[in-house]
Amino acid sequence: MRILGIDPGLQITGFGVIDVDGHALTYVASGTIKTTHLDRGNLPARLKVLFDGICEITARYSPDSSACEIVFVNVNPQATLMLGQARGACVTALVSRNIEVAEYTPLQMKKAVAGYGKAGKPEVQEMVKRLLRLPGLPGKDAADALALAITHAHVGGSAAILARATTLGRTSTASFKDGRHH
Amino acid sequence: MRILGIDPGLQITGFGVIDVDGHALTYVASGTIKTTHLDRGNLPARLKVLFDGICEITARYSPDSSACEIVFVNVNPQATLMLGQARGACVTALVSRNIEVAEYTPLQMKKAVAGYGKAGKPEVQEMVKRLLRLPGLPGKDAADALALAITHAHVGGSAAILARATTLGRTSTASFKDGRHH
Repeated sequence: MRILGIDPGLQITGFGVIDVDGHALTYVASGTIKTTHLDRGNLPARLKVLFDGICEITARYSPDSSACEIVFVNVNPQATLMLGQARGACVTALVSRNIEVAEYTPLQMKKAVAGYGKAGKPEVQEMVKRLLRLPGLPGKDAADALALAITHAHVGGSAAILARATTLGRTSTASFKDGRHH
Repeated sequence: MRILGIDPGLQITGFGVIDVDGHALTYVASGTIKTTHLDRGNLPARLKVLFDGICEITARYSPDSSACEIVFVNVNPQATLMLGQARGACVTALVSRNIEVAEYTPLQMKKAVAGYGKAGKPEVQEMVKRLLRLPGLPGKDAADALALAITHAHVGGSAAILARATTLGRTSTASFKDGRHH
């Protein structure tokens, strides 16, 4: 099974792809999608870069499943709103390609990868390097995305937790009830 | 020119389509996309309904342009985060179809439609009914969406404000620099 991990962010979204065969994990690819070259005020254009980037990644690597970090409320409410929209674009890109999206909190990810929820970024990077037998430390954003994919691989073995992995709704928009009615 | 107005919401997203020919506005369609039939905890499935719904609307009505309400920080930060994700899905659906997205605040919309920024929902509904010569009051969610489309039609005549209408970035994901690099 191939898993795509996504660490969503409006400026930098990290992604990581791994293959899972029983207990064996194999690194496939990782990197970031950046919107920093765009006008900060042009939110639609930035969301389009995230959407196009994730669609490009899914087309290139054909993941069977994905794991996306659950983002939290920031001290800055405006930043929370921006991060929410970025995450919305990322999740939308995945479901638009009919890829199921499992959602994990940073706590779940850190516990799954480093063994405890208070692990710092360097510990997550180090554990990702070890678990995937990488020649060097992965970048911070890519490390979190790879860690999310590893988290999904680990909990994927447990039916109870697997059931929490989000299944997609119907493709048809049955809720589109009021069309043509003002 | 055909304009699609979108009033984004995680439970109910309103949409309204109008045609603009000089100063003449013609009602085309309006309605809502609802996610209320889905498990509240299944955010990816709810975002997929919003994405699919907007793609269905754009395919059916082929708008030349769109206007989406700028959402604000809520007293409940978690609700803000959810609304942000819903708006992200809506804007993403529009830009994924290469439809330009203009963004307006509720204040801009109320000023454009009712003449003052503190207009209430009933006044917006009444003005939308009059401006589009509807036989009855439009529903609240559809009224806001139609009002956004009308706002875009009004300010579309002013080059200065038109320049604020968001133009899309490049389709290619040039920012996808770090692919394959961990």
